Amino acid sequence: MRDFTNDHSALALNTASLGHNLDGAGAGWSPERVIDACAARGYGGIVFWRREIGKRAIEIGNRVRAAGMQVVGLCRTPYLVGRDAPDQDDGARASIDMAADLGAKVLTIVTGGTDPGRKGLAETQKRLTDRVAALAPFAADRGVSLALEPLNPMFGGNRTCLFTVAEALELCHTIAAPNVGIAVDVYHVWWDTRLAASLSAARGRVLGYHLCDWLEDTSHMLLDRGMMGDGVADLLAIRRAVEDRAGYAGLCEVEIFSAEDWWKRDPNEVLDVIVDRFRRYC
Amino acid sequence: MRDFTNDHSALALNTASLGHNLDGAGAGWSPERVIDACAARGYGGIVFWRREIGKRAIEIGNRVRAAGMQVVGLCRTPYLVGRDAPDQDDGARASIDMAADLGAKVLTIVTGGTDPGRKGLAETQKRLTDRVAALAPFAADRGVSLALEPLNPMFGGNRTCLFTVAEALELCHTIAAPNVGIAVDVYHVWWDTRLAASLSAARGRVLGYHLCDWLEDTSHMLLDRGMMGDGVADLLAIRRAVEDRAGYAGLCEVEIFSAEDWWKRDPNEVLDVIVDRFRRYC
Repeated sequence: MRDFTNDHSALALNTASLGHNLDGAGAGWSPERVIDACAARGYGGIVFWRREIGKRAIEIGNRVRAAGMQVVGLCRTPYLVGRDAPDQDDGARASIDMAADLGAKVLTIVTGGTDPGRKGLAETQKRLTDRVAALAPFAADRGVSLALEPLNPMFGGNRTCLFTVAEALELCHTIAAPNVGIAVDVYHVWWDTRLAASLSAARGRVLGYHLCDWLEDTSHMLLDRGMMGDGVADLLAIRRAVEDRAGYAGLCEVEIFSAEDWWKRDPNEVLDVIVDRFRRYC
Repeated sequence: MRDFTNDHSALALNTASLGHNLDGAGAGWSPERVIDACAARGYGGIVFWRREIGKRAIEIGNRVRAAGMQVVGLCRTPYLVGRDAPDQDDGARASIDMAADLGAKVLTIVTGGTDPGRKGLAETQKRLTDRVAALAPFAADRGVSLALEPLNPMFGGNRTCLFTVAEALELCHTIAAPNVGIAVDVYHVWWDTRLAASLSAARGRVLGYHLCDWLEDTSHMLLDRGMMGDGVADLLAIRRAVEDRAGYAGLCEVEIFSAEDWWKRDPNEVLDVIVDRFRRYC
């Protein structure tokens, strides 16, 4: 594992950590304000959400790079399967175009839930495989990789049909496209005691690593993620597996949905605490 | 799979399905009233919670058998690990005694969460293994089997350190006691696409099968379980795997925590719907 004791250039901010407002990034901050605040603190990159970008993808991407950082990724495609997935691929292709315009190498896929009328997961996963396989060449043409993100099983039904790194990796193997891989998020996979073994089999396939912590008492499924160090996830072991076993060499993206705690604080404080916790615990 | 089209004697009620009051079984019903209502509808057995039994274990157990049913199990030991586990085994031994007095062959174990000061799961699972191994001979002397219940990963941190059938089976193999096995609960394992393979390796180790459904939109982690047929779990496939692969020949226990729906209904209606859904969907 790399030594970041005196360097946090491997740290990236997912803007959701500052709050998730419809009007823009956290606490109503503009992308420009987020960029300046991250650059001032030595962050290595930023991950945006589509609704923060609008039609300014090229401008915002250039601004990030001018500040000496990377656009690490873009969140995310519309759902590809499940009740809430749009019928057509248009939205997915538009999100790929946006990632390309931003200069984000990775676009995250949260799959969507179980297809209407289906029981279990087999048919839905099969349809997901077909949709991702159909999108992959389009994304490759634009220099964008697609990261399938397995979610904690509590998000089955309406949000995902992929629950473990092992399962996401199976889909990657079936799709067999060089630009389709996996996003590993601590919140979703910390509990998986087979994670290290799964990551050994995922060499070169990890496209993103998302940091937060799993609180001992999690009061809300979506919006009660912990700051690194405040929970029970073994953050050092997971990072070691992601980097040493899977060979991930990209940035570590802090993504904390926390409606009742971190989202209520001054974003400047949150950005400072993230740097401190990253250096101490991650 | 056995044919229950015209027979639901394999159906058992977990009393939690009628509501979970401190004063007794659902909706304030006494154990006697629950027993009579289940017997009248042809249920094959009942699973009680400790707080419903008090000091009347022998009396209640006899009453169930006199009504032509079995006491399928007892919920459950106190937590054995994690912040909320009592320091001593006294409570666990008392719950084993209660199961024996009831004539319940199976006592369920929900393990408790991550031990204080620990990150990840390895040390806590090790301590759990030791505690269950120490309890197993005591339980065997009283004719009671211990069923480790893996929980949905959303219950990590404060409620469990076991998340999959495969993981629970590993503990069983380490403990290597004939009266230690697994409880398989649809709510906790429906998402696990390796479940069938795990159950093939669990031959003879499944001590309980718990039925409900996973709703497409789950609004509360603990208290929003669905009635069979209303969700996305593949109930027929899971039962087939439990019976054909793992060789489970016991009853199917319906356990629905549903504060905003089923617990608000007349228990007579709930008992009728359970019979109907069991025959149609399970």
